[in-house]
Amino acid sequence: MGNSGKVVLAYSGGLDTSVCIRYLQTLHKLDVITVTVDCGQEDDFKEIEKKAKAIGAIKHIYIDAREEFAHDYVVPSIKANGLYQGKYPLATALARPLIAAKVVEVANREGVTAIAHGCTGKGNDQIRFDVTMRALNPKLKIIAPIRDMNLTRDVEMKFAKEQNIPISAEAKKYSIDLNLWGRAVEGGNIEDADFEPPEEAFQYINFQNDKAGYVEIEFEKGVPVAADGKRMPLIDLIQYVNDKAGAHGVGIVDHIEDRVVGIKSREVYEAPAAVTIIEAHKDLEKMVLTKHELAFKRMVDDQWSWLAYSGLWQDPLRNDLDKFIDATQVRVSGKVKLKMQKGSLRVVGRESKYSLYKNDLATYAAGSTFDQSLAKGFVELWGLQSIIANSVAADATTSSDKKQQQKGGKK
Amino acid sequence: MGNSGKVVLAYSGGLDTSVCIRYLQTLHKLDVITVTVDCGQEDDFKEIEKKAKAIGAIKHIYIDAREEFAHDYVVPSIKANGLYQGKYPLATALARPLIAAKVVEVANREGVTAIAHGCTGKGNDQIRFDVTMRALNPKLKIIAPIRDMNLTRDVEMKFAKEQNIPISAEAKKYSIDLNLWGRAVEGGNIEDADFEPPEEAFQYINFQNDKAGYVEIEFEKGVPVAADGKRMPLIDLIQYVNDKAGAHGVGIVDHIEDRVVGIKSREVYEAPAAVTIIEAHKDLEKMVLTKHELAFKRMVDDQWSWLAYSGLWQDPLRNDLDKFIDATQVRVSGKVKLKMQKGSLRVVGRESKYSLYKNDLATYAAGSTFDQSLAKGFVELWGLQSIIANSVAADATTSSDKKQQQKGGKK
Amino acid sequence: MGNSGKVVLAYSGGLDTSVCIRYLQTLHKLDVITVTVDCGQEDDFKEIEKKAKAIGAIKHIYIDAREEFAHDYVVPSIKANGLYQGKYPLATALARPLIAAKVVEVANREGVTAIAHGCTGKGNDQIRFDVTMRALNPKLKIIAPIRDMNLTRDVEMKFAKEQNIPISAEAKKYSIDLNLWGRAVEGGNIEDADFEPPEEAFQYINFQNDKAGYVEIEFEKGVPVAADGKRMPLIDLIQYVNDKAGAHGVGIVDHIEDRVVGIKSREVYEAPAAVTIIEAHKDLEKMVLTKHELAFKRMVDDQWSWLAYSGLWQDPLRNDLDKFIDATQVRVSGKVKLKMQKGSLRVVGRESKYSLYKNDLATYAAGSTFDQSLAKGFVELWGLQSIIANSVAADATTSSDKKQQQKGGKK
Amino acid sequence: MGNSGKVVLAYSGGLDTSVCIRYLQTLHKLDVITVTVDCGQEDDFKEIEKKAKAIGAIKHIYIDAREEFAHDYVVPSIKANGLYQGKYPLATALARPLIAAKVVEVANREGVTAIAHGCTGKGNDQIRFDVTMRALNPKLKIIAPIRDMNLTRDVEMKFAKEQNIPISAEAKKYSIDLNLWGRAVEGGNIEDADFEPPEEAFQYINFQNDKAGYVEIEFEKGVPVAADGKRMPLIDLIQYVNDKAGAHGVGIVDHIEDRVVGIKSREVYEAPAAVTIIEAHKDLEKMVLTKHELAFKRMVDDQWSWLAYSGLWQDPLRNDLDKFIDATQVRVSGKVKLKMQKGSLRVVGRESKYSLYKNDLATYAAGSTFDQSLAKGFVELWGLQSIIANSVAADATTSSDKKQQQKGGKK
Repeated sequence: MGNSGKVVLAYSGGLDTSVCIRYLQTLHKLDVITVTVDCGQEDDFKEIEKKAKAIGAIKHIYIDAREEFAHDYVVPSIKANGLYQGKYPLATALARPLIAAKVVEVANREGVTAIAHGCTGKGNDQIRFDVTMRALNPKLKIIAPIRDMNLTRDVEMKFAKEQNIPISAEAKKYSIDLNLWGRAVEGGNIEDADFEPPEEAFQYINFQNDKAGYVEIEFEKGVPVAADGKRMPLIDLIQYVNDKAGAHGVGIVDHIEDRVVGIKSREVYEAPAAVTIIEAHKDLEKMVLTKHELAFKRMVDDQWSWLAYSGLWQDPLRNDLDKFIDATQVRVSGKVKLKMQKGSLRVVGRESKYSLYKNDLATYAAGSTFDQSLAKGFVELWGLQSIIANSVAADATTSSDKKQQQKGGKK
Repeated sequence: MGNSGKVVLAYSGGLDTSVCIRYLQTLHKLDVITVTVDCGQEDDFKEIEKKAKAIGAIKHIYIDAREEFAHDYVVPSIKANGLYQGKYPLATALARPLIAAKVVEVANREGVTAIAHGCTGKGNDQIRFDVTMRALNPKLKIIAPIRDMNLTRDVEMKFAKEQNIPISAEAKKYSIDLNLWGRAVEGGNIEDADFEPPEEAFQYINFQNDKAGYVEIEFEKGVPVAADGKRMPLIDLIQYVNDKAGAHGVGIVDHIEDRVVGIKSREVYEAPAAVTIIEAHKDLEKMVLTKHELAFKRMVDDQWSWLAYSGLWQDPLRNDLDKFIDATQVRVSGKVKLKMQKGSLRVVGRESKYSLYKNDLATYAAGSTFDQSLAKGFVELWGLQSIIANSVAADATTSSDKKQQQKGGKK
Repeated sequence: MGNSGKVVLAYSGGLDTSVCIRYLQTLHKLDVITVTVDCGQEDDFKEIEKKAKAIGAIKHIYIDAREEFAHDYVVPSIKANGLYQGKYPLATALARPLIAAKVVEVANREGVTAIAHGCTGKGNDQIRFDVTMRALNPKLKIIAPIRDMNLTRDVEMKFAKEQNIPISAEAKKYSIDLNLWGRAVEGGNIEDADFEPPEEAFQYINFQNDKAGYVEIEFEKGVPVAADGKRMPLIDLIQYVNDKAGAHGVGIVDHIEDRVVGIKSREVYEAPAAVTIIEAHKDLEKMVLTKHELAFKRMVDDQWSWLAYSGLWQDPLRNDLDKFIDATQVRVSGKVKLKMQKGSLRVVGRESKYSLYKNDLATYAAGSTFDQSLAKGFVELWGLQSIIANSVAADATTSSDKKQQQKGGKK
Repeated sequence: MGNSGKVVLAYSGGLDTSVCIRYLQTLHKLDVITVTVDCGQEDDFKEIEKKAKAIGAIKHIYIDAREEFAHDYVVPSIKANGLYQGKYPLATALARPLIAAKVVEVANREGVTAIAHGCTGKGNDQIRFDVTMRALNPKLKIIAPIRDMNLTRDVEMKFAKEQNIPISAEAKKYSIDLNLWGRAVEGGNIEDADFEPPEEAFQYINFQNDKAGYVEIEFEKGVPVAADGKRMPLIDLIQYVNDKAGAHGVGIVDHIEDRVVGIKSREVYEAPAAVTIIEAHKDLEKMVLTKHELAFKRMVDDQWSWLAYSGLWQDPLRNDLDKFIDATQVRVSGKVKLKMQKGSLRVVGRESKYSLYKNDLATYAAGSTFDQSLAKGFVELWGLQSIIANSVAADATTSSDKKQQQKGGKK
């Protein structure tokens, strides 16, 4: 079909990218190579390949990037306590630059001149794709049919029907994005910010289980290496925690979020492992990092999360921040025990050989090694300037009152 | 007894301040006026007065400061999402400057030259008391017997026995500080950071109730004014939420905390209302503040919480931050609905007339008013510099490799 | 000419806005009302009106906004030590939202449906205009001919010639923007970042004067109210300092700047008064604000400057920050003396009734009121956690070395 | 003399440390080993040794630490644009942890149990010494005679006279601390914050030279490697710039500074090389770092400077920040040209192979590669939320006015 060359399309098998195949063929006269990157989305990849080819892809490539995703994207995010606006564990945000990188790799290998994605112009993914792609190969032309033609879902559905593009029989209630690190649920009734997300919106969460449960996570240099005493590869560990925390109702995130383009949206996520592991990691850091490190790392973590969310994974600042974070993580080794029940999650114990918590210093009981008399001098100097400021302000007010009186006489 | 004058002592009725009465009398030869400030600690204040006089106070003064505490200390903290190190709702920290201010007021009125408190030299309260007291009246001498004599609990117990100072019959398992905004549990077995706090450590929490419940909190300009549709005075509202959230297990905080003096300690708190109200308040802010406001207010809130925790309530910076915060709160009006069960707490709905969330912009469905084609230009410029940085770095590396090659010839 | 209605154009009299008149008439079929807002640019406003009408404006409006500019834009910037990226005193950036507001006012009054400006798509001014205009009246359509048609200066020149639009006889070497608060010099040879700006680029600077001079600036609540002992209106004071500092070579700024759109540019400014007044203001703040206020205000000032630069004058965050800043300025009253010579600027003395600098505390001589023995306790607790961190890290390393040895036996 | 063991004293040869020798001998009954660490203070070290022995030191050790000082302390500070409170180049602050480390090394080698320094309790140096010493060897007892006995300069003078300790003939007008990176001038008439420091307070500055001069500094990965085209070792380069910049009057710093103990003091420094090199370094960073890196690095730099100033060199946070900073410096290579005259210092040109400044993007002339039409979408989304916020606020106000009217009827 295409006579203008070839294009590599990031293909998920969903509506958006399926109609893109046809648009690229018919409007852009391009031969389409589809690439599906596996970041743990648990799809039927054979089915996806079949579908791509049925719509007309000249070639389909499946890339298993789960290991790379876990180690190069999820691990830095755990170390950074990656939560955008304090809530969102960044699952989709982390996968996008990886998918973009894989698409560029294929494009370079296949010698094409254009790449494509199915993102809309309202979301964040377009930014994550475009910026990463351009940073890695600025010469490749990027085509984003949905955005460029300002298409809505309804128009796409109509086009798909006309073009005999298979759509999943039942109209899906929500638009889902899933990977190893979490699940995003969008659209439908939860666009009403005042409507409670119904149980059917979730996949991992067990809403029936009333029992309490515990999970113990062990970290080495900031990376989770064991759960409940069993060492396991990171991917397995994440799945293990997803299952266990989800079974106790843990992992729902529901908040109002600021998209990069300036739109606010109500977002609902389901990320049992991410929520649990980050809560544990933050707690352990409090035990081993100094107060100065903790205070500054809050700003670093916020900045890191913002960059990852905002499509600026390739900005050199991300690498700079990673260097800071890695330096702090050298001592983030130890075990954290968490209690879970009906969605509640609470750290109930922690230990580390790098612990700066010294009971003999902190205790109010006998045997303390802390000399309280040192505190007197500390306290006096700690507040010295605040105290002077109050006294100076009082004096200045008094003296100007006096002056006022002297001048005015009456008032 | 005293022949060196009079002293005003901040008196709680507990062991520390009770032995202080006697120390002030015997060691410092001072007549002791005891002051008990009611911040909602639900004590038997008649009993406390009796005890003070039994030990030898020449005068006892009870001050009901609950309204002042709620409006001048808790309200600013709600607006600031006051959580020290992201976790501690500051209950004790907020009460201390108020108690200190009341003690100074009494001291000024009674014409004494010294004031006293029962804080140890290891904790934060000494700092909160000393700095506030000095800021308000630098001429008053501050006596802190426990700190100055480096006393431990055991020594105090022995002294109390010798001096016939009544101690509560049963050895208390924990040292508790309670007020309207929360409860701090210290000492005993929970000093072991790896030991799960037992149920007996808590007072509000119902560990048996399995049912889910909802609470709806309405805010006006950042201040909670109604719960479950009923307008009520702030003190009542806090108690209402304490009861309801506590009944669903919500409000336990357990973390490693950095005290001002540099010691890390494991701290356990129980603050159902504080945890619930702040979670609701943060959520509502996300709906009505711009992303620029939200990002900057995170830093302001952290700084505010640090000041309040660190005894720097009187530093002018706290007032400066309050002015920023008050300006943001003008639009923080609306309702937030939270779901609670077995300790879990989750916002499930929110609405505000100041909402910046516009579904017609955000929706992926038909009828959106957002023109996606604007995004292309945005995305391109958004990442422009990150992209240039990558290409410049690649070029520089390539060219220095080339140079290297030209120079080296072989390598 | 126009038969599609009327448009209000922000008109400076320069090439860009002059060709805009004609474009609006011929391409958009609009009647053009030109508005020139006086922010202290010292132009011949009669000449500008004549020119506007000669090109075809149906009406010209001159607005003297100098007082408003000084008090509502420059004053907040002084209080915020407004320097973008630590260098640029924001002169043009501050005037744009004011001009935009005036244009919207006129548009509302004249009942037009469109407004226009002559900004290019590469600079910051388009953002400052557009965002302010939309914030103040989102219903007005904004037309920006230069940007929308992607015009370059050369194309504009050609069009001007064809259309008999008068251009200043001599080809100007630089593109200048001037107002009360400073002068921006762009284009020509100084686009080469490695080329020293020649003397002809500057207007205020006297390059011949070798003498040293002093200026004393008095502030009241952060606002300059007197210079060299003479109280004067702010506009006069700024002009006085511009003349005096410029006479001693002070006020050239030369740096690489990040435009909002992501482009870096080499920028050259001439702002004797701004540079001098801000240097004095910063110095005075150090004398009267607490160290906590100073540290936090650096971040506030940076954020404020970024907002003002980035066209976000109307974002509510700017107002929030102003409230913080105003609270700090209550004590920023006093006098600062600066020495100037051949471009150097140095504060050599300062005094304030709110000074927190107390010589009797600071002095190392006899008569000090500072009790050094307090320092011992302070120092010990100040570094406590850093010290523990080192010792824990050393122990952990040693013990894992030992373990290693025990396990390995040989290594 | 001593029969309680040996002590290692950090010895400068000045009054404070000279009287310390005698105090340690007579009060503490200790044998004193004096250590003088050369950080570029240009003293007569033979003379110092002679003096130490004359007063009674049993051993004197001279350590040339200039290379270590330059590479391990000054270089990180250059990379961090190390300026405390935006002004002080940290010269003394950087040398203290190095001297402390050397003293601990000697103490470990000599097998002593105590170390000593001559710092007062009012300054910062006691903190820098104590914290570093304890972090490196917490078992060593630290003795600080001047602080512990709360001595003033006058008391010391009297004691020195009694004990026949030689004092430099003429009463010194100022107390000076000098090293490679700068010179601190304290005491005397400049303690009056409103008094201009006289010429005699300075050593490097030439107040007579009227001529303009240029210096070009070349950086590689953030480190200055050449000046005026000549590659030279760092120590030589610093001395070269000190001489050249000083000859043109550059390098005086005069501000109000917050000491760690809470005292404000008026500080005067003379640091031609530090001021010049940091100005150049900051300018080059603006050319090669992305705007995101620049904005965040300002906070990192401030934090780094605060740590170094505050005696927290050994806190792990300093190392964490260094890792961030080092990552940014990989691209900070290039040349910066500065103009100097009568104390003025101004960058007039810069170049780098990592430059992100692209004239073809920035230029307003023909041949620009920037497509202005992209800006329209960018601008619209850039301000989207600020605009919505204004419109929502206006609507909410209007509607509550209406409600008010409906309710009130009259008002």
